[in-house]
Amino acid sequence: MSAPFVAETTFRVRYAETDAQGIVHHASYVVYFEEGRSDYTRQRGSSYADFEREGFFLAVTELQVRYARAARYDDRLTVRTWIREIRSRSLTFQYAILQADSGETLVTATSHHICLSREGKVARIPPRWLQWMEQ
Amino acid sequence: MSAPFVAETTFRVRYAETDAQGIVHHASYVVYFEEGRSDYTRQRGSSYADFEREGFFLAVTELQVRYARAARYDDRLTVRTWIREIRSRSLTFQYAILQADSGETLVTATSHHICLSREGKVARIPPRWLQWMEQ
Amino acid sequence: MSAPFVAETTFRVRYAETDAQGIVHHASYVVYFEEGRSDYTRQRGSSYADFEREGFFLAVTELQVRYARAARYDDRLTVRTWIREIRSRSLTFQYAILQADSGETLVTATSHHICLSREGKVARIPPRWLQWMEQ
Amino acid sequence: MSAPFVAETTFRVRYAETDAQGIVHHASYVVYFEEGRSDYTRQRGSSYADFEREGFFLAVTELQVRYARAARYDDRLTVRTWIREIRSRSLTFQYAILQADSGETLVTATSHHICLSREGKVARIPPRWLQWMEQ
Repeated sequence: MSAPFVAETTFRVRYAETDAQGIVHHASYVVYFEEGRSDYTRQRGSSYADFEREGFFLAVTELQVRYARAARYDDRLTVRTWIREIRSRSLTFQYAILQADSGETLVTATSHHICLSREGKVARIPPRWLQWMEQ
Repeated sequence: MSAPFVAETTFRVRYAETDAQGIVHHASYVVYFEEGRSDYTRQRGSSYADFEREGFFLAVTELQVRYARAARYDDRLTVRTWIREIRSRSLTFQYAILQADSGETLVTATSHHICLSREGKVARIPPRWLQWMEQ
Repeated sequence: MSAPFVAETTFRVRYAETDAQGIVHHASYVVYFEEGRSDYTRQRGSSYADFEREGFFLAVTELQVRYARAARYDDRLTVRTWIREIRSRSLTFQYAILQADSGETLVTATSHHICLSREGKVARIPPRWLQWMEQ
Repeated sequence: MSAPFVAETTFRVRYAETDAQGIVHHASYVVYFEEGRSDYTRQRGSSYADFEREGFFLAVTELQVRYARAARYDDRLTVRTWIREIRSRSLTFQYAILQADSGETLVTATSHHICLSREGKVARIPPRWLQWMEQ
């Protein structure tokens, strides 16, 4: 059993992502996870945009987030994204968001997704994609 | 020349719409204007959702905003929305956003839109829509 | 053991809350839950804005969401919000988001929060607030 | 009269920034402009976060946007940001957003800002900042 491929994406917190508490709004992290998934597919040599162009979609069915520490405007954050489990029609991503400079973990999360066809039916993930999503 | 139909929509500022300055983020108003347009069409007896179902889209081509005063979380705001000009293939909306309780004007704006077909070509606004958009 | 107070908030999906799949983006629901909490406090005769003015904050520490069905632009949604558990320094909210017209459940969620002072220390929820948060 | 300093920032469109028309929502560009300003200050050797830590804020008073072409999920965009005019208490930024690969211009904009103190009063931009904002 080998360690999973972990995609790392680093970016700055945007001002619009903060709220009146002076910190990053908790919904902004949900967008960061999504960007983590996007970058995961790019780093595996493809793009989620291609996945949709081929007529498939990943729909989010579950999301679990644990918020440990806050981030602020201009902070450099790193999203670590990896696949915990992949099945014929669904997959589970995991995430850790860290302060890029200190390495301190701020937020961890898991999201579960099913594969849908253009008609909205549950569909098998195409083999080519299963392959690069695996190690 | 008669006064235009003015749609009024009142709602509360959401926490997520604020930023670290403690006030409503300036991009949030752009969403409020859009909601003002949506409600304008509802109050004229139709829905922008129907417009799209009929195969047409309004694309924003210009936006001008003047920010006079800030709003905060939980404030009740009123968006006033009216049509300044309507042509065969384009139209111009105007907006005023007020504190619902004091009537104080916070933000004013103008947006210009063109009508597109499903194929992304500039198209004539269907007559039925021209009609209700007029006085 | 009595049934909890359930706050109901109904609103329309905004266009900006949708994504390129044509449906409401999954992060938008996180904002709907927050608006559910805001309205919960209003319906209990107070306001989360007052809570912050008194020097306290509720910080989100956990979030769990299950997405069953998609919503679209212009849909009327109802958020049902209630308190599942309340302790001296933390509380847990639960949510169900439904199509307002059909009553069909789209999304369910739980969020856990701790009470913080202005200095960012974990603090007791003030008695007055504990009271109205209870049945 | 010399050419102004132009900051260039390149990033990918996030899925959450699109809408049901399949394109980037027009309010997302307002966030891109803000990120352009943030990066402008970083590239001039400082940070807007420092500006706020010193007790000053830039409040947006006007915004003008022209949308020429749409962008889509995963597109690489470049924001070009420069200062058009700077005065003792206000400044004007200009922006062009391009497809990073083709160089095609999608959106152009101008934003006007005033400098505020922590108390919300109009204030002089501190000399050190005036300096790096100038050429």
